[in-house]
Amino acid sequence: MKSTRNFKSQANSLAVQFYNVRKLTLNLTEKLSDADATVQSMEDASPAKWHLAHTTWFFETLILREYLEGYELFDPAYPFLFNSYYNTLGDRQPRPKRGMLTRPSLENVLAYRNHVDEAMTALFSQLMSEEVLPLVELGLNHEQQHQELLLTDILHLFAQNPLKPEFRPAIPLPVKNEASSPLTWIDFEGGLSKFGHSSQSFAFDAEGPSHQYYVSPFKMASRCVTNAEWIEFMENEGYKTPTLWLSDGWDIAVADDRQAPLYWEKKDETWWSMTLRGFQPIDLDAPVTHISYFEADAYARFRDKRLPLEYEWELVSNSQAIEGNMLETNRLRPAPARGQGITQLYGDVWEWTQSPFTPYPGFKPAQGAIGEYNGKFMCGQYVLRGGSCVTPPDHIRATYRNFFHPQKRWQFTGLRLAEDL
Amino acid sequence: MKSTRNFKSQANSLAVQFYNVRKLTLNLTEKLSDADATVQSMEDASPAKWHLAHTTWFFETLILREYLEGYELFDPAYPFLFNSYYNTLGDRQPRPKRGMLTRPSLENVLAYRNHVDEAMTALFSQLMSEEVLPLVELGLNHEQQHQELLLTDILHLFAQNPLKPEFRPAIPLPVKNEASSPLTWIDFEGGLSKFGHSSQSFAFDAEGPSHQYYVSPFKMASRCVTNAEWIEFMENEGYKTPTLWLSDGWDIAVADDRQAPLYWEKKDETWWSMTLRGFQPIDLDAPVTHISYFEADAYARFRDKRLPLEYEWELVSNSQAIEGNMLETNRLRPAPARGQGITQLYGDVWEWTQSPFTPYPGFKPAQGAIGEYNGKFMCGQYVLRGGSCVTPPDHIRATYRNFFHPQKRWQFTGLRLAEDL
Amino acid sequence: MKSTRNFKSQANSLAVQFYNVRKLTLNLTEKLSDADATVQSMEDASPAKWHLAHTTWFFETLILREYLEGYELFDPAYPFLFNSYYNTLGDRQPRPKRGMLTRPSLENVLAYRNHVDEAMTALFSQLMSEEVLPLVELGLNHEQQHQELLLTDILHLFAQNPLKPEFRPAIPLPVKNEASSPLTWIDFEGGLSKFGHSSQSFAFDAEGPSHQYYVSPFKMASRCVTNAEWIEFMENEGYKTPTLWLSDGWDIAVADDRQAPLYWEKKDETWWSMTLRGFQPIDLDAPVTHISYFEADAYARFRDKRLPLEYEWELVSNSQAIEGNMLETNRLRPAPARGQGITQLYGDVWEWTQSPFTPYPGFKPAQGAIGEYNGKFMCGQYVLRGGSCVTPPDHIRATYRNFFHPQKRWQFTGLRLAEDL
Amino acid sequence: MKSTRNFKSQANSLAVQFYNVRKLTLNLTEKLSDADATVQSMEDASPAKWHLAHTTWFFETLILREYLEGYELFDPAYPFLFNSYYNTLGDRQPRPKRGMLTRPSLENVLAYRNHVDEAMTALFSQLMSEEVLPLVELGLNHEQQHQELLLTDILHLFAQNPLKPEFRPAIPLPVKNEASSPLTWIDFEGGLSKFGHSSQSFAFDAEGPSHQYYVSPFKMASRCVTNAEWIEFMENEGYKTPTLWLSDGWDIAVADDRQAPLYWEKKDETWWSMTLRGFQPIDLDAPVTHISYFEADAYARFRDKRLPLEYEWELVSNSQAIEGNMLETNRLRPAPARGQGITQLYGDVWEWTQSPFTPYPGFKPAQGAIGEYNGKFMCGQYVLRGGSCVTPPDHIRATYRNFFHPQKRWQFTGLRLAEDL
Repeated sequence: MKSTRNFKSQANSLAVQFYNVRKLTLNLTEKLSDADATVQSMEDASPAKWHLAHTTWFFETLILREYLEGYELFDPAYPFLFNSYYNTLGDRQPRPKRGMLTRPSLENVLAYRNHVDEAMTALFSQLMSEEVLPLVELGLNHEQQHQELLLTDILHLFAQNPLKPEFRPAIPLPVKNEASSPLTWIDFEGGLSKFGHSSQSFAFDAEGPSHQYYVSPFKMASRCVTNAEWIEFMENEGYKTPTLWLSDGWDIAVADDRQAPLYWEKKDETWWSMTLRGFQPIDLDAPVTHISYFEADAYARFRDKRLPLEYEWELVSNSQAIEGNMLETNRLRPAPARGQGITQLYGDVWEWTQSPFTPYPGFKPAQGAIGEYNGKFMCGQYVLRGGSCVTPPDHIRATYRNFFHPQKRWQFTGLRLAEDL
Repeated sequence: MKSTRNFKSQANSLAVQFYNVRKLTLNLTEKLSDADATVQSMEDASPAKWHLAHTTWFFETLILREYLEGYELFDPAYPFLFNSYYNTLGDRQPRPKRGMLTRPSLENVLAYRNHVDEAMTALFSQLMSEEVLPLVELGLNHEQQHQELLLTDILHLFAQNPLKPEFRPAIPLPVKNEASSPLTWIDFEGGLSKFGHSSQSFAFDAEGPSHQYYVSPFKMASRCVTNAEWIEFMENEGYKTPTLWLSDGWDIAVADDRQAPLYWEKKDETWWSMTLRGFQPIDLDAPVTHISYFEADAYARFRDKRLPLEYEWELVSNSQAIEGNMLETNRLRPAPARGQGITQLYGDVWEWTQSPFTPYPGFKPAQGAIGEYNGKFMCGQYVLRGGSCVTPPDHIRATYRNFFHPQKRWQFTGLRLAEDL
Repeated sequence: MKSTRNFKSQANSLAVQFYNVRKLTLNLTEKLSDADATVQSMEDASPAKWHLAHTTWFFETLILREYLEGYELFDPAYPFLFNSYYNTLGDRQPRPKRGMLTRPSLENVLAYRNHVDEAMTALFSQLMSEEVLPLVELGLNHEQQHQELLLTDILHLFAQNPLKPEFRPAIPLPVKNEASSPLTWIDFEGGLSKFGHSSQSFAFDAEGPSHQYYVSPFKMASRCVTNAEWIEFMENEGYKTPTLWLSDGWDIAVADDRQAPLYWEKKDETWWSMTLRGFQPIDLDAPVTHISYFEADAYARFRDKRLPLEYEWELVSNSQAIEGNMLETNRLRPAPARGQGITQLYGDVWEWTQSPFTPYPGFKPAQGAIGEYNGKFMCGQYVLRGGSCVTPPDHIRATYRNFFHPQKRWQFTGLRLAEDL
Repeated sequence: MKSTRNFKSQANSLAVQFYNVRKLTLNLTEKLSDADATVQSMEDASPAKWHLAHTTWFFETLILREYLEGYELFDPAYPFLFNSYYNTLGDRQPRPKRGMLTRPSLENVLAYRNHVDEAMTALFSQLMSEEVLPLVELGLNHEQQHQELLLTDILHLFAQNPLKPEFRPAIPLPVKNEASSPLTWIDFEGGLSKFGHSSQSFAFDAEGPSHQYYVSPFKMASRCVTNAEWIEFMENEGYKTPTLWLSDGWDIAVADDRQAPLYWEKKDETWWSMTLRGFQPIDLDAPVTHISYFEADAYARFRDKRLPLEYEWELVSNSQAIEGNMLETNRLRPAPARGQGITQLYGDVWEWTQSPFTPYPGFKPAQGAIGEYNGKFMCGQYVLRGGSCVTPPDHIRATYRNFFHPQKRWQFTGLRLAEDL
């Protein structure tokens, strides 16, 4: 997170970025009612209001209280209400009870954002300590993560509602014109290479340190698995064949009676699903999404393939531009693949890899609260790569490691197949 | 529920009652935000918005759809959303998910109320079928029950919030002037008498039929147990002495680490509790409330007394006027006892009796949906008598049987002691 | 429990009874292996070894340690291991972990029984304190209760085993000759009468005090509901019609997917069930058993009848001799009804009544450990009357109140219908 | 699993091995009663009788039924009773209900073993198919795994018993003479090397294929962490400092109130623990054991060190003989470290590594039932290396990958520290 660029210009550019990120968060929530923004639909999800406030609390707590002389808390109760999981930073509202906070109102929370944004403006106008810039950068990346979570959490909330509300109005998808490009396979030689983040630019701590890893030769699928392909899996008893599944995954599939991806429903012989654009027919050519690691892994076995390693994915990404169907397209749903060679690497769906989320060799969390950011979650989760249709495009990188528990499905999670060569 | 009074005047008076009851419900919710009205704080509680809509659904479903020609549903989705537990009336939103309904908004629900109220006005202006009046009466009494639940559910919600919001602004209690009258004991002879509802006026089905029961001679306490007396129980290890407790109650007390009534918290050596008027010091002279049957029963054993039978309570009530600290005083908290003889029989706190909620001899639930009102809950619950500080005064009767599970505490539940003579 | 009979002869007769009861317990367990006697098949059940030891502990703790000078504990660890639920008598092995006690072995436990029996013999040969006799009587009745539990617990254990072991060898039932007598109805006038135990002879505390109760006129079925009748209920969607069920019962039936009585299995289009005589075809003419209160209650509603009150049952029993298919017939299964008028009142199956298990007016538990015997369980359970095919015949009485939670099914529980007149 | 050695001599040597392994299992259970061998103390553990029968079922199902002409099942019910988790091989007794099987008796199970051993003898005397030898080898290694589990499961069962039975009589440990050798650190260069099993000799499928991996330079501790060192962790609030813990681990530590390793109890100011030799004082110089991955990981953070990767452990093992305190010493407890350099690599305690149990590059499970052996468990577990004080010494290898869930503690699990160089 160190920087050798000209300090002042870096501060200015960060200030601009600050206003952009903060404004985007507001845009995402502008159609939500106070009630929409307050309810917590499950323990994994958080209310939109909480996302709005928690991202603000991050700037207040880690930057303003430390570095802006004379800064006054907007409300002395908020640090308790909006701390997420930082034991170093004190007690907090228990996670499963974030949805009890009908007060402060959405209006109060927006005022809180204003208060903090103004204080940040004051700070930007000062000669800031050099330690501040990396914290601002972290705060912005943190807020971008919450932008994505805010959308997946709202989708989950709306999916619980029999009225099936739209987050954004439906657009008829030009399905005819969007046939997916065919599945092809691309060979990669592998070998011993450097992986992980190594440049001066921002990255989360878990993306480094840069280190060597030996990759065996492999093949990678040209695109993600589509809904049409997934329906073949379903129609060939994929959800009913225990030998395709990891043992833990099978137990969950049986216990929860999982027969299709999350949000799917059959209506008059056709599959539909809940989306941010309301209840819609399944787009057969688009990548399947809202599947767990267990489902992805079972599907790969069904095709006699496997999930890629995160190292394989990163190797493939070396030759790829960071572009794709992400938040700025405002489609808010995965789109069919286009073009030749490796496609859909970025955007559309987070791709499950078979790599558990573990520390890279030499990884040490930072001292203090920031050290709690990623390190303490390095157990029982799997790495996903590439971002999704609701990831802010300037947030994603080739080295970016997202991670979720293998049974989770409410994120835009999908898969791409790989194979030994 | 039959009537021999002049039909037209009865209809008119019912119409007036209708407007009053409906208006009171609105008054109770007028300070609630959309978010306050939407969140469900536990499975036992329902959102205020849901109470507003469900009581409206009751009139729509049981009266308007049957008896108002040409009535059109406000929204075809609402019957699913706002049915509570009537299997006869179709499927419904699962009880634990009532809080997921951020839509319809509070505004929509208020429009729904208007729609139904106008249709009811149309119905009142017609020559109504004679079957309708008892249904209107039932609907109003149903709504009054929900007025009380709405308040206890809001209290529970606000109690989960570290900001401890006030439902109504605190009023300084004139504690000095309100010392409770001393506890005395009144003898009753008992004998074989008639119990249960027998007049023409409205009562719920479970209050009848009228039947004979033999009561042995007994003594009844002149007033409810006070907070000061309860603190003696606490200070004498009442919560730590298993031999005072029913076996199931002890298991719950240990598992949940219950050491005081619900909502109590110690602050600087004094007991405080969450109330509808915010976080307040305990009023030592007022009746203890928010206690379970198990706590009430253990307290009685601690004093070498017992809880009354519901028959004993009803016998005592014969000589008493229906007056007390109820919803119309707007105190919204129990008040110290005043006067001589039996006091506090009505209002302040629902009094746990040792009578399980069972059918009276000869009880038969009505055919159809109305038959599901009470009968199917006659298992595992105890009868409470007398109403509370948030019961509408024209809702309570000597024969009124409220009922809750013995471990529940979020209602205004308290106790009065009895003893064999 | 007081006695005015000649003390010495009473002591002698009790000594004889003591040897008989203790011997019967041994007979019941003689075919059980150490393993059979050790495993606990669910939290409600206890291992046979535990029953053998706990009944022995009762004599040791309440009699020998108090009244036999110089008595030495067989093993100082046993009081902890074999106390059931008496808080007054110290800590104990947690109930769900009774099955962890592979040591002491069955052999050790039998030696423990010998040790205590010899000490009891020494006590019987002395001039005993007059307080002792009622305790011995209580201990014997306590052991008889555990004889029945031992059998129902073994049945439950064996039912978990795919080998379906026989507790006693199967006897071919003379099914042809045993057609059940037809169902008739007998009228009873009711009125105000005395109920509960009043004589000098032994009864459990919960059977008294004797008190008056007013019973309305009613009809009682001549016999219990048969398996054939129960199959009609099943074939008429009885298990799938929520309006027949109490709300809590319906929730359990759905959650556990209850479609038939406990232990029933369909095999080649016929119903079979696990019994103490192995896996056997259902005896269509015999009373249905292993049903919960909820099932019994739903069945009664299906027939447009109701369950009797315990007072009604007791009134009917006044004219009946205490005889029937009980433990001494060694059939170990319910048998078809025989004869005219009220039949099967005693034996065959415990009959669910609609009376919750509550204290009779004036009931006060004894001081000390004995006071924990029944009183603390007077919540959430229902009274059953009449004994079953595994009840020792000298253990049952007209006033006997057995009690279980309404969802339980592993006892020999059945039903008889009643109706208002 | 292929072999190029002389087939006949290989078969003979395998037959000898077969008798030895089978006999050792019997020796381990010879002091167990039928009850000891039947009870299941938790879902993770299995009854000794079940281990005896399941290992036998393995030979019967995978070898005798396929390759011995005319083989007759000992009992047609046993395949259902004693299948563990092989979906390919049919339905089975549910895992949590293995302890319900009081029948067949221990005697029957021993007869089953005889029956199968005799059939195996018949098979060994024939000209066997070449496919059989690897299956026998697998069956023997499978049985050796169950020998260890049998011991850890018996220890868990006995630990639930307040009598704290000894599996083998206590031997006074010569504590004075056994001071642990001091902790030193040994440097390793790392680099790109081959890992995993590559020879002709037996290994489990998950140990291969052999593949390259790049290891960064590191230091390894000379011995395991001792009980004395662990007590320092405890006394320095190790169990109360959330920042030392992985998030999931902290949640479990709080929920289960974990304050010490499993089986530890404080008695008169000293720590004792349950062992296979009864309840014994903690041996301060011996390696700590019965700790979870979460505890091991927190300890490493407390010392500012880390757990080794499984690759690091395997690299270190290259220069080490396979010797140590294993099952054949009959100590049945970890022993203090002796000597210079890397010690205790084999035996004493399984060493938690920070490597999740994932497939090696190129890993493919076998077709059929054997493919279910390891592959389907490759999720959510961590690799442990080196064997323990109850591992048969001819069962362990440098490439051996044991695996357990990170919260489990009932195995002989301990740790050795590592550090980046």
